[in-house]
Amino acid sequence: MVDPANTVGIPVNPTPLLKDELDIVIPTIRNLDFLEMWRPFLQPYHLIIVQDGDPTKKIHVPEGYDYELYNRNDINRILGPKASCISFKDSACRCFGYMVSKKKYIFTIDDDCFVAKDPSGKAVNALEQHIKNLLCPSTPLFFNTLYDPYREGADFVRGYPFSLREGVSTAVSHGLWLNIPDYDAPTQLVKPKERNTRYVDAVMTIPKGTLFPMCGMNLAFDRDLIGPAMYFGLMGDGQPIGRYDDMWAGWCIKVICDHLGLGVKTGLPYIYHSKASNPFVNLKKEYKGIFWQEDIIPFFQNVKLSKEATTVQQCYIELSKMVKEKLSSLDPYFDKLADAMVTWIEAWDELNPPATTA
Amino acid sequence: MVDPANTVGIPVNPTPLLKDELDIVIPTIRNLDFLEMWRPFLQPYHLIIVQDGDPTKKIHVPEGYDYELYNRNDINRILGPKASCISFKDSACRCFGYMVSKKKYIFTIDDDCFVAKDPSGKAVNALEQHIKNLLCPSTPLFFNTLYDPYREGADFVRGYPFSLREGVSTAVSHGLWLNIPDYDAPTQLVKPKERNTRYVDAVMTIPKGTLFPMCGMNLAFDRDLIGPAMYFGLMGDGQPIGRYDDMWAGWCIKVICDHLGLGVKTGLPYIYHSKASNPFVNLKKEYKGIFWQEDIIPFFQNVKLSKEATTVQQCYIELSKMVKEKLSSLDPYFDKLADAMVTWIEAWDELNPPATTA
Repeated sequence: MVDPANTVGIPVNPTPLLKDELDIVIPTIRNLDFLEMWRPFLQPYHLIIVQDGDPTKKIHVPEGYDYELYNRNDINRILGPKASCISFKDSACRCFGYMVSKKKYIFTIDDDCFVAKDPSGKAVNALEQHIKNLLCPSTPLFFNTLYDPYREGADFVRGYPFSLREGVSTAVSHGLWLNIPDYDAPTQLVKPKERNTRYVDAVMTIPKGTLFPMCGMNLAFDRDLIGPAMYFGLMGDGQPIGRYDDMWAGWCIKVICDHLGLGVKTGLPYIYHSKASNPFVNLKKEYKGIFWQEDIIPFFQNVKLSKEATTVQQCYIELSKMVKEKLSSLDPYFDKLADAMVTWIEAWDELNPPATTA
Repeated sequence: MVDPANTVGIPVNPTPLLKDELDIVIPTIRNLDFLEMWRPFLQPYHLIIVQDGDPTKKIHVPEGYDYELYNRNDINRILGPKASCISFKDSACRCFGYMVSKKKYIFTIDDDCFVAKDPSGKAVNALEQHIKNLLCPSTPLFFNTLYDPYREGADFVRGYPFSLREGVSTAVSHGLWLNIPDYDAPTQLVKPKERNTRYVDAVMTIPKGTLFPMCGMNLAFDRDLIGPAMYFGLMGDGQPIGRYDDMWAGWCIKVICDHLGLGVKTGLPYIYHSKASNPFVNLKKEYKGIFWQEDIIPFFQNVKLSKEATTVQQCYIELSKMVKEKLSSLDPYFDKLADAMVTWIEAWDELNPPATTA
């Protein structure tokens, strides 16, 4: 079978998984030429492009891709006053795409991420691996030393409780990066030449009660299970902080997944991250986050959601109250952020009304 | 440089790490021919061989190895009535070797474990990797998505709190197995042909608050930091259970490491595990453990040691009381085990008196 789309010699998966149940969300300020390389893997899927910055600029999307595109004017028009919860001039704006999607699954990827190769030289179908991760259970309650027990050739090891072997539903799949690692500005400055060349052939569940730094560059999730908590916060234009959008979402989703009994995986798939961002610019965006996180992380480590919070929305509203109460003393920004968290949920529910039963 | 010991073509490390600070503990019932293959890596170190079963049997140790050997008669002579805490006819007897060692570090390995090869075909120096793991800090308080942040070519990723980047001391290094995976009897029965061929090139810290199934086949630890908790319990002859010796030790050391702020790592190094044990025999040994662990694991997940417990011994004695109180209802065996835990600590302290200050 010859596929005309296969212009770069990457084998095409003949039956794209979840084709009609997944949207790809891409935040960008530039032409999406990077999609050429992804064509064999991503072209069958629908794209939601969130255009950041100048809304009059025309973004070029490679021929043959099916997409909808939202610029700032669209966001303002659709959300009205609630558009205040969507960041501007920061890739945090991507979460608008999560909100307008009508699909069960989201894959989000940055426009400087390319197809990675595994150690055998084979192109990595990142989306296919994310889908596998999401469709197969997680094991947050006990650690399996041979990594993902559901993978071919692996299983639960001796001593793993049988009652936990069914696992729990997976809400989030966090992929990694070859080449440019996701370092903070100080580490970028200290190690400007470090490249990640280690391909670790593993997927694992992040244990319950453990927080992790979630990167938004190569990420997939189940909107039905965790969507309303995937808010990327207030970053960029008019805000005192940037580059903490995905971290914020990662802390929030993890405590909510732990509370609701859902799983978060990390590891495969890798993408090839091509471009190191400017460490001086990054330092300016990050520096408040670097000291705030010393208080924010203990705050999240101690979050206890109530038994009454049984939906993601309820958990998130509870969390927003805790943020207001406990983090506002750190900086007035957190007061504003807590309000934006509430606005986000209101906007989410407006665009995603609960299905009415007949 | 030509090394006459290098009979199998494996390159010799010219300067063995921690040569005078580490003992290798091997429990066995047979001749130790497997050490031939390990010669380039292990010959410089001192061995403590714990001979299980018939004490009149003569165990052959390959020429050139420096060793001491203890059979059951030796254990009885050295420990007197306290020898009751050391299992017989079960590899749990290995923990006697931990007790008589005078070194800071222990590496323990089973006699059916051979030198593994990494994906490039290079022989894996398992002990060297364990030593690296033990000498470099652990990060139990927050998850690093790029695995061991101290490894060459890796670091802490964006969003990892700077205050936690020094890590904590590593107490335990848990290695893995290629070829025959460490499965329980039911899994062995269901998947008799499964072999582990996946070499995952990673070392990671098991997060604080997360239990794991610790396998004693390929394990190293810091005796000074955690030795007195490395008790492998009452197994084998005269006991209702087997093959849970290392699991028991793993649960105990993990809650104590978490309490004392110490780290436990898992991943590299791999050994090549040659021989699947008989699943029918294993099932007989394991079946009580398989249902008991459904209660034991929640017990350990809820263990809270007191602030007053600041040494491993104090933690372990506290734990023994909790075992007696909470697990004896499961089976009278746990009453006996709790007593043996106390005996073990008494014997440990007798053989390892605190250094007297002048």
